[in-house]
Amino acid sequence: MEEEALQGILRESGADALFLECDFLRRYVTGFYASDGYVVCTKDACTFLADLRYFEAARARLAGSFVRAEEGGFRQAVALAKGAKTLGVPYPFLSLADSAKLEAEGFALTDCMPAFRKAMKVKSPSEMQKIARACDIAEEGLLATFPRLKEGMTEREAAAVLEYEMRMRGADGTSFETIVAFGAGSSVPHHETGDTRLAFGDVVLIDFGCKVEGYCSDCTRTFLFGDDGAHEAFKEHYRLVLRAHEQVKERVHAGMTGKEADEIARSLFREAGAEKLFTHSLGHGIGLQIHEYPVLSPRSEEVLADGMVFSDEPGLYVEGSYGIRIEDSVFIQGGKVHSFMKKLPRELIIL
Amino acid sequence: MEEEALQGILRESGADALFLECDFLRRYVTGFYASDGYVVCTKDACTFLADLRYFEAARARLAGSFVRAEEGGFRQAVALAKGAKTLGVPYPFLSLADSAKLEAEGFALTDCMPAFRKAMKVKSPSEMQKIARACDIAEEGLLATFPRLKEGMTEREAAAVLEYEMRMRGADGTSFETIVAFGAGSSVPHHETGDTRLAFGDVVLIDFGCKVEGYCSDCTRTFLFGDDGAHEAFKEHYRLVLRAHEQVKERVHAGMTGKEADEIARSLFREAGAEKLFTHSLGHGIGLQIHEYPVLSPRSEEVLADGMVFSDEPGLYVEGSYGIRIEDSVFIQGGKVHSFMKKLPRELIIL
Repeated sequence: MEEEALQGILRESGADALFLECDFLRRYVTGFYASDGYVVCTKDACTFLADLRYFEAARARLAGSFVRAEEGGFRQAVALAKGAKTLGVPYPFLSLADSAKLEAEGFALTDCMPAFRKAMKVKSPSEMQKIARACDIAEEGLLATFPRLKEGMTEREAAAVLEYEMRMRGADGTSFETIVAFGAGSSVPHHETGDTRLAFGDVVLIDFGCKVEGYCSDCTRTFLFGDDGAHEAFKEHYRLVLRAHEQVKERVHAGMTGKEADEIARSLFREAGAEKLFTHSLGHGIGLQIHEYPVLSPRSEEVLADGMVFSDEPGLYVEGSYGIRIEDSVFIQGGKVHSFMKKLPRELIIL
Repeated sequence: MEEEALQGILRESGADALFLECDFLRRYVTGFYASDGYVVCTKDACTFLADLRYFEAARARLAGSFVRAEEGGFRQAVALAKGAKTLGVPYPFLSLADSAKLEAEGFALTDCMPAFRKAMKVKSPSEMQKIARACDIAEEGLLATFPRLKEGMTEREAAAVLEYEMRMRGADGTSFETIVAFGAGSSVPHHETGDTRLAFGDVVLIDFGCKVEGYCSDCTRTFLFGDDGAHEAFKEHYRLVLRAHEQVKERVHAGMTGKEADEIARSLFREAGAEKLFTHSLGHGIGLQIHEYPVLSPRSEEVLADGMVFSDEPGLYVEGSYGIRIEDSVFIQGGKVHSFMKKLPRELIIL
């Protein structure tokens, strides 16, 4: 990230230095990924302390004037922060064990996560590009998977195909555990992909995403694997979910709260007498983490603004029968919602 | 886990109740996986507090007399723990933010992780079976990948194929980010799988594993993609790593410390003048987490015992040129080391 923005986080946190151990914050600040290491930022310098395994790579990539790489671990990180009285650490991502170690070194701790969240909520153009690429790969991956879905295949096998197709297009991995639900499993919003086999006429719900340079995509499509003519109620609910999904895109704008955005979908379901079937929130921020800010839920007072990226994912679930969710990763620009998803139809697909 | 073992953890932690938010401990205690939820264990009952998304599944699976499922979140979890003065929480896996919330409720906290680690270090027969299955799938996956490796393919594509082959054989996902290194990239122990293309004569290092019901496998093989006749030094180092790997299997036994086990490989490298090229530890415990206990390193005083599962992974790395690591997931039974890996050759493969 930019030196100026980083200094802003130091200031806002009321910290003399930032002490970061968790991987996505290290990556956010430096752009460099390592499974281990520390990032220590003071007013003068920001240092990536990498262990031997990553030091060469860190040194090669962090050649900027502000972020430098040094070999080391906890002791060296503490030494770099030594001049600081108050350390900014992310309370939700720092363990009690690690905070005790820092307090034993005489540091006072303050939570830097509110300032990071505020900064991370609004994406830079280069972050947008990475998310756009992750979304494009996800779309291409599902499109390539459609013709490979066969009767008798298990949910796990379908997930294998989809993940493979995303990987082959440049994904670094999935952004969360791929959800593939065949039939009644679709009525469980967080269905665990298992050994259920695909049958003619099944409702299929696939919630998936991939990562590109750490940045996530998130997408859900619900479709029919052949139409056995027994899906009237499903189709009616599908139209309703699609309307909610599209209305969110049309009506959400900068300046609106997360609560107001959620209410667009929720009120539509309410009018149709289906509100109780919408058992989760409308959406969540997407970035280096699959769930970040802003939150679009009945209690969210966060104000939406240009540069924010989030999911638009209304859903209706009829227990034991079927579930429908239609989800795009979207962003706000020029005050309006735009979708990262340009290739996958949202209208009901019958394979 | 068994009620008796759970009560042992309560006692050893000096806690009146356990309050668990992190997924692998929830799974260890109840056998049930959910991405969210709380497990609260007192002397009388152990309850899985699942949110709406998981409640149905939790209720169906947790039908035992001791572990029960209830719908709820943080407030309900706190209410269940209310009689307790001291809560056992895992300090390394509880965030500072969450610990503050518990302290605000008037609980004293104590670290239950030492007791969990002790228990988790020794696997039950059913845990062993899951790890064995994860290892078998990993082996089959790599064997199926070998013939699909082609000149010009990227590291990422090779990882895609391997992950697909594991997934199709029943893996729930990878146990860590698959490392595929072609050529000089193999000299970086934690090489980031990227866009390097496979060329004739390349050294190929693949470090990978998968999960079965949460349990991990961990395996590394180093091989040649064709022999261009320029690999004499590599082959000599390969023989040395293989000797270290096999000696560890032959000589490690119950009652030995992690340090003594590490020294078997390290002393062999030392005698050959290659000690400096062995830049990491010999091994780590494997279970629900990819890195757990025991640790086999120059500083580990942990005593190895029957039922422990760990990696045997000596390696030598010649910076900028090549690296070699040969890794099996192994276990101790009847005082001796046995490998979970039965299908993949350890001798140098030339594809």
